[in-house]
Amino acid sequence: MIQAGIYGASGYTGQELLRLLIFHPEVEVAALTSRKYKGTPVSDVYPIFRGLTDLEYIDASPETVAGLCDVVFLALPHGEAMAVVPAFLEAGKKVVDLSADFRLRDRATYEKWYIQHSAPQLLERAVYGLPELYRDDIRKADLVANPGCYPTGVILGLAPLLKGDYINISSIIVDSKSGTSGAGRELQMGSLFCEVNEGFKAYKVGGHRHAPEMDQELSVLSNEEVKVLFTPHLLPVTRGILSTIYADMKGTYDAAQISGIYEDFYDDEKFVRVYTVGSLPNISSVRGSNYCDIGITVDKRTGRIVIVSAIDNLMKGAAGQAVQNMNLMYGFPEDAGLNLVSLYP
Amino acid sequence: MIQAGIYGASGYTGQELLRLLIFHPEVEVAALTSRKYKGTPVSDVYPIFRGLTDLEYIDASPETVAGLCDVVFLALPHGEAMAVVPAFLEAGKKVVDLSADFRLRDRATYEKWYIQHSAPQLLERAVYGLPELYRDDIRKADLVANPGCYPTGVILGLAPLLKGDYINISSIIVDSKSGTSGAGRELQMGSLFCEVNEGFKAYKVGGHRHAPEMDQELSVLSNEEVKVLFTPHLLPVTRGILSTIYADMKGTYDAAQISGIYEDFYDDEKFVRVYTVGSLPNISSVRGSNYCDIGITVDKRTGRIVIVSAIDNLMKGAAGQAVQNMNLMYGFPEDAGLNLVSLYP
Amino acid sequence: MIQAGIYGASGYTGQELLRLLIFHPEVEVAALTSRKYKGTPVSDVYPIFRGLTDLEYIDASPETVAGLCDVVFLALPHGEAMAVVPAFLEAGKKVVDLSADFRLRDRATYEKWYIQHSAPQLLERAVYGLPELYRDDIRKADLVANPGCYPTGVILGLAPLLKGDYINISSIIVDSKSGTSGAGRELQMGSLFCEVNEGFKAYKVGGHRHAPEMDQELSVLSNEEVKVLFTPHLLPVTRGILSTIYADMKGTYDAAQISGIYEDFYDDEKFVRVYTVGSLPNISSVRGSNYCDIGITVDKRTGRIVIVSAIDNLMKGAAGQAVQNMNLMYGFPEDAGLNLVSLYP
Amino acid sequence: MIQAGIYGASGYTGQELLRLLIFHPEVEVAALTSRKYKGTPVSDVYPIFRGLTDLEYIDASPETVAGLCDVVFLALPHGEAMAVVPAFLEAGKKVVDLSADFRLRDRATYEKWYIQHSAPQLLERAVYGLPELYRDDIRKADLVANPGCYPTGVILGLAPLLKGDYINISSIIVDSKSGTSGAGRELQMGSLFCEVNEGFKAYKVGGHRHAPEMDQELSVLSNEEVKVLFTPHLLPVTRGILSTIYADMKGTYDAAQISGIYEDFYDDEKFVRVYTVGSLPNISSVRGSNYCDIGITVDKRTGRIVIVSAIDNLMKGAAGQAVQNMNLMYGFPEDAGLNLVSLYP
Repeated sequence: MIQAGIYGASGYTGQELLRLLIFHPEVEVAALTSRKYKGTPVSDVYPIFRGLTDLEYIDASPETVAGLCDVVFLALPHGEAMAVVPAFLEAGKKVVDLSADFRLRDRATYEKWYIQHSAPQLLERAVYGLPELYRDDIRKADLVANPGCYPTGVILGLAPLLKGDYINISSIIVDSKSGTSGAGRELQMGSLFCEVNEGFKAYKVGGHRHAPEMDQELSVLSNEEVKVLFTPHLLPVTRGILSTIYADMKGTYDAAQISGIYEDFYDDEKFVRVYTVGSLPNISSVRGSNYCDIGITVDKRTGRIVIVSAIDNLMKGAAGQAVQNMNLMYGFPEDAGLNLVSLYP
Repeated sequence: MIQAGIYGASGYTGQELLRLLIFHPEVEVAALTSRKYKGTPVSDVYPIFRGLTDLEYIDASPETVAGLCDVVFLALPHGEAMAVVPAFLEAGKKVVDLSADFRLRDRATYEKWYIQHSAPQLLERAVYGLPELYRDDIRKADLVANPGCYPTGVILGLAPLLKGDYINISSIIVDSKSGTSGAGRELQMGSLFCEVNEGFKAYKVGGHRHAPEMDQELSVLSNEEVKVLFTPHLLPVTRGILSTIYADMKGTYDAAQISGIYEDFYDDEKFVRVYTVGSLPNISSVRGSNYCDIGITVDKRTGRIVIVSAIDNLMKGAAGQAVQNMNLMYGFPEDAGLNLVSLYP
Repeated sequence: MIQAGIYGASGYTGQELLRLLIFHPEVEVAALTSRKYKGTPVSDVYPIFRGLTDLEYIDASPETVAGLCDVVFLALPHGEAMAVVPAFLEAGKKVVDLSADFRLRDRATYEKWYIQHSAPQLLERAVYGLPELYRDDIRKADLVANPGCYPTGVILGLAPLLKGDYINISSIIVDSKSGTSGAGRELQMGSLFCEVNEGFKAYKVGGHRHAPEMDQELSVLSNEEVKVLFTPHLLPVTRGILSTIYADMKGTYDAAQISGIYEDFYDDEKFVRVYTVGSLPNISSVRGSNYCDIGITVDKRTGRIVIVSAIDNLMKGAAGQAVQNMNLMYGFPEDAGLNLVSLYP
Repeated sequence: MIQAGIYGASGYTGQELLRLLIFHPEVEVAALTSRKYKGTPVSDVYPIFRGLTDLEYIDASPETVAGLCDVVFLALPHGEAMAVVPAFLEAGKKVVDLSADFRLRDRATYEKWYIQHSAPQLLERAVYGLPELYRDDIRKADLVANPGCYPTGVILGLAPLLKGDYINISSIIVDSKSGTSGAGRELQMGSLFCEVNEGFKAYKVGGHRHAPEMDQELSVLSNEEVKVLFTPHLLPVTRGILSTIYADMKGTYDAAQISGIYEDFYDDEKFVRVYTVGSLPNISSVRGSNYCDIGITVDKRTGRIVIVSAIDNLMKGAAGQAVQNMNLMYGFPEDAGLNLVSLYP
């Protein structure tokens, strides 16, 4: 049994990590930190843990937490994560960082979209934690940058097409719709029930911070510079991201052919499910599980491919993928603690 | 006061028409038909009408209803509407048809996407009831084909760009998201609360019947043959359609310039609201009202325009627009009975 | 046309008042105040008003607002309302106060449940603004205390039984369920979408401030001291309160007899709809309208009456009732500006 | 590994059973039956099972299914379950019946509320499957009648009070609110998204079939004839039942004392969580898990106890409890396959 810590454990991602780790066969949770809830049992803040754990939140330095843990999950806002990563690495601990701080390999890009980077020397050491693309690197890493929720579904949705050079990369349009838990538990007017319920809107068109992250990984896949047009929308549901992805085909393929390409590409992947032609995913089919479901359509009239991918933003889009990364880092079975059927209805 | 009938008044569109007509200053509702609820007070089927009307549903032939009314709204499934239209016209009545039967001018296109047409001789007589584009024709018409819900928002969202030749017409992609009331009150598994709630999915990608309707009107606007790629999605809300529309610009414009084009185009339109640059519509801002709200973004990185339009599918997308059409046909103020502030939150 | 002001107009109740007043045939809105949004057009804060009004929020003293208006609606938190009421009354203006400050006639009770009262000399002058019980007093009043949302539905639901002495007053149990807009637009964790959605809970059992308000009015009706057991619950909907009210019958009546009593009692009331035996109200049948719908059941097995009442908490529970009160104060038709069919579905 | 069958596996309860059994350490699912979906993979009907099982629905006689299984779960409508139970028992199989057919011990009561009983000789053999009350009997049973969803939460909520004679049994009022999945996947107008969403109503007041089931068990607990007043309501959520239960205390106790009584009573129970005084359960804290959460309040003003209990109707209210019963029948750890943290948010 390894000892795990969750640094910044009071938000939705933090509690989701605890939900997964509490029954993980190889892990014991040794520390949960929260400045706000210091001294409070986690089961008071999240009653789902009543009867399952006596853990209390602590307010502790990275050094103290490093003394308690083998691996630490950082569920902190960007900026705060890079401030504590060096201490954990110096103490010889493994880190899965769920913030954006080590996702962008290019420092200038990070600083353009976020803030000044305080640990740029570690950017090269960090591995982008998308197991389906970087499995071997993750196995050897001690610092994994867990991907953003939108990029996870979009990159997995486009990878087979870009690897195989099937589409015109300047034609990619990504129309994503995310549940509200993606905004976290912070107090913002736009997250109030009465503002979200029965509503639907686009936001940050052309200006969302996940766009450069997609660009980076799609460019790696295609060996060319990709600039996606990314439009996020806010769904009046708690969990789930569905991305509808449009691209012009370079040749002429029908849906069955494209589907075959995806099935080959993801043949051995446990957490990517390629749908048979004629059916498309629904976010409700991945709720609470670590799957990325992908459906394929070809519009013959216009020569375009339409890919639909669905994930649970708190699972494959955050905590689930983080556990998958930890499993790889420790050589555990990749699905340890993740054998969860989606909750339906 | 004119006498109005609603033929097929038991569904959501039928009851919405009654909601609007009951306080319309120029109209009295003389007949509501329903085979299923014959003899039942409408206030038993829809308790919102308790205390407001004693009307009962009747099961009556078009001839009988024609005897009671000056104008009739057909809230029937496609196929059934064209079966009764001739009788109403022969009796000298005005008809607003909310079905798809007279929306497509080309008989072959209709028969390809729907069924055999039983009244093709009337196709030319019918006017497509989008007042912002066909106001003068509607004023003179006795048969108005009320547009589909998706086409209403999409056509209004694209009209200024197509009229002014600002975009590459082969590049148009329409990603629409509709509330569940668009599926009507029929018993279908896909409309059950537990199937829709907390879910989100695309459906009928490239195969929705509203695509040829959009193509028809967008082609008229652009004087070229348009084929849109149209992807509808099902939102877990009751009312509202938000369409995110992508197109490549022919020249180089910024959002303020495009916005100016829209403001000019819709300058005198009461029911189209163009948003200032930087803000985008939300379906919750049009709920229960007859507005079409439009927001504009230009993505400089990719040279694309992103238009977002929002309507209430039961209002501007159905009953509200039908009343607007009736107002035009009778020379009433165009907003009579439609002076409704959206219900928020 | 009279001039109306809304003092504290940035919350849900304030915007609902504006929604009602904007098309009110006898009223012009002259002032909207908000410290937070001073200088901002109301249509920026609530886009439903785009195209309908150019009004901007102002930050103004009661004296300044009194100079602009004949009547003022106070949509302020308790404590703040009583601080400005004297200024409006001294200026000879009429006031409809939507806060709790003048609802409780007994100063000590107010101070026990709220805070110290700063204008106790006005408690006697204020009229409790439930038109169905205090219509004549309201007509003559210049200070109307608009009832709380929960009390409105509960008092209307119990009045006929208490007036006629049909129930044992010590047996009254009120189990109420309210939509989330009742909590206002303040930033609270408990109002976040992800906290409310798919959830349901009781709160403040035996400790809600609306209990003494119910006690006060139910005691007046029954001429005895009533102490209700009141349990509020939070519903994952935006609008609506449904109260299920239990009481032991003093004699033996069947549902038809009790129903007859209610129909007689509310015979001339436009905004109370008594349901026929066998049907019960749903909050979705009053959404957006000023109705209070009441259904009656008698449980023969246990000799108890079960009353179900439904209102829209922002309408009959707040802004709608406030406009109804204003109509009475000015001798306008009681339903002026309130001829609204509920929005369904 | 034992072999399990689910007879009638196409509804929400059937798929929930499969969700639980698919990772159960002691069970293999050998058969799923459905007339409607015969020959269809379960993963086509419920995409959550994609990648997890190749099982197809079969249409098979009880005899055939008995040949494949050691234990069978009946997820059939009442009436159909009792028609197949004898065949399974004759074949020496164990049966967990999730229908109402064997819940009521008294044949006449069953026939009054349901239909004629076709296997009355088995009524005595059946054990009421509430483990917290009948654990030892369940261990020895071959026919377990899985309790109704409402009764589960209500009986667990009242058991300590009735066992200890703390309340006046004629005073019990049960006000329950259930999510929509309780109505199943059948096509009914009242289950449509647009009918349920943003709505809330009471239904079947005094006439719900779960009332006699509560009466039966509460009478056993109290040794007197109990007749509850039971009011079910429909919540616009998918999962969860919250019951607010009122009763007059016989003596004078404060909340801490009552809470102590509950803690003692449920001391060793894994799936009942008694809340500390001052906190009350929310259905969102039991979603997807097998817990029954109970909160306690005492209203000193009226001398009444208010108990709030929360379950997931598909879990502790159906499939979860069924698996708990099977675990007992086979001597497996009682929580095998049920070590699930609730899904939040």
